[in-house]
Amino acid sequence: MSDVKKTTIVLFSGDYDKVMAAYIIANGAAAYDHEVTIFHTFWGLNAMRKDEPIQPDKTFLEKMFGKFMPRGADKMPLSKMNFGGAGQKMIKNVMKKHNAMPLPDLIELAKEQDVKLVACTMTMDLLGLKQEELHDGIEYAGVAAYLADAENGNVNLFI
Amino acid sequence: MSDVKKTTIVLFSGDYDKVMAAYIIANGAAAYDHEVTIFHTFWGLNAMRKDEPIQPDKTFLEKMFGKFMPRGADKMPLSKMNFGGAGQKMIKNVMKKHNAMPLPDLIELAKEQDVKLVACTMTMDLLGLKQEELHDGIEYAGVAAYLADAENGNVNLFI
Amino acid sequence: MSDVKKTTIVLFSGDYDKVMAAYIIANGAAAYDHEVTIFHTFWGLNAMRKDEPIQPDKTFLEKMFGKFMPRGADKMPLSKMNFGGAGQKMIKNVMKKHNAMPLPDLIELAKEQDVKLVACTMTMDLLGLKQEELHDGIEYAGVAAYLADAENGNVNLFI
Repeated sequence: MSDVKKTTIVLFSGDYDKVMAAYIIANGAAAYDHEVTIFHTFWGLNAMRKDEPIQPDKTFLEKMFGKFMPRGADKMPLSKMNFGGAGQKMIKNVMKKHNAMPLPDLIELAKEQDVKLVACTMTMDLLGLKQEELHDGIEYAGVAAYLADAENGNVNLFI
Repeated sequence: MSDVKKTTIVLFSGDYDKVMAAYIIANGAAAYDHEVTIFHTFWGLNAMRKDEPIQPDKTFLEKMFGKFMPRGADKMPLSKMNFGGAGQKMIKNVMKKHNAMPLPDLIELAKEQDVKLVACTMTMDLLGLKQEELHDGIEYAGVAAYLADAENGNVNLFI
Repeated sequence: MSDVKKTTIVLFSGDYDKVMAAYIIANGAAAYDHEVTIFHTFWGLNAMRKDEPIQPDKTFLEKMFGKFMPRGADKMPLSKMNFGGAGQKMIKNVMKKHNAMPLPDLIELAKEQDVKLVACTMTMDLLGLKQEELHDGIEYAGVAAYLADAENGNVNLFI
């Protein structure tokens, strides 16, 4: 085990509150000089979606999935108390009042702090997501790369 | 890494069954002489709410959130098969039949075993929860304190 | 800490996608020579249920729970975008198209790779599940056994 601490998060969830928890821990760990990786898989991939409606060559079912899944972190629902989006709006308002960072800013901060953002290629296939729909400058990998990061890690979380 | 084993749990969930899983693992680890911390954040904070209806000075939206969120561990729903509370009742009945501890007792046991119970101050602000609403004798901290516990830990879980 | 890497997963969830994530990580870790344990608890126990309708001696409530819970991994719903089963069918179709393994095959592969599959006896009681309903050749244990595996582990996840 090297001297540098490592935090590796599998981000499976696509809920606003869980993604926020993941990025707050990631940014905190990066501030404490951890090497941090967030491995986005399944619904967590939606945090990496661009805001614009990109329609690459997709099958009908892929289009349907793409349409119903949130386009980017800012559009994700809460896992609880969402009330058709009202709960998410309340959380965002309170965050503004407390000068807390909204989720898209937490993601930008993670990039600035060199948190390694990875998209799981296998689940991209399953959900019909293409690289041109996702944020620029992220990495693409599979479970082997995840394990290589995690097996020497200090803080391993599945969110 | 010191000789004492450490278990550190981020308790994000506010579901009866998940909170139960967290406290069973925490109590088990404490029984095996681990230093155990449960860091309550987001919906997991509701496990630390007192049963009485305390109405500190709150905004309208904070009051609404406070009203809809379960007041204490005993009132939490199941994550699955809740059937409007019937599933939770069934689980509680079976637990009684098997002489298993109900959740409030698991939390008391954790306190007796010196499990460190922490409430995340940042998410308390987001959900409008005040210290006077929460159990006495718990600690208040943020992500930095969590990481200090977790980075030298043996068992790190996000529940 | 021994030289062999260890991956220990608490599988709490009974959602098709989360169980899939657990078994993909488990199989990956086994392929990289980790000692891997999946500790099935609560709804994750349903992944170990046999397909046949077995009706051991059960109380009425246990039968009701048994009827509403999915009988085996193949029948589990998605955690998101399930659309009454349509989303799960789509994921399965895409997996076939990409020659990805369906969940029951991932579980078989895990067995072939000597992943230790454990069923949590305490939660079996709570959900009214009996050993004759579950896969053959798995182990039965409680939280103490889990901790013994996890406390020397490299990758510890709660899914």
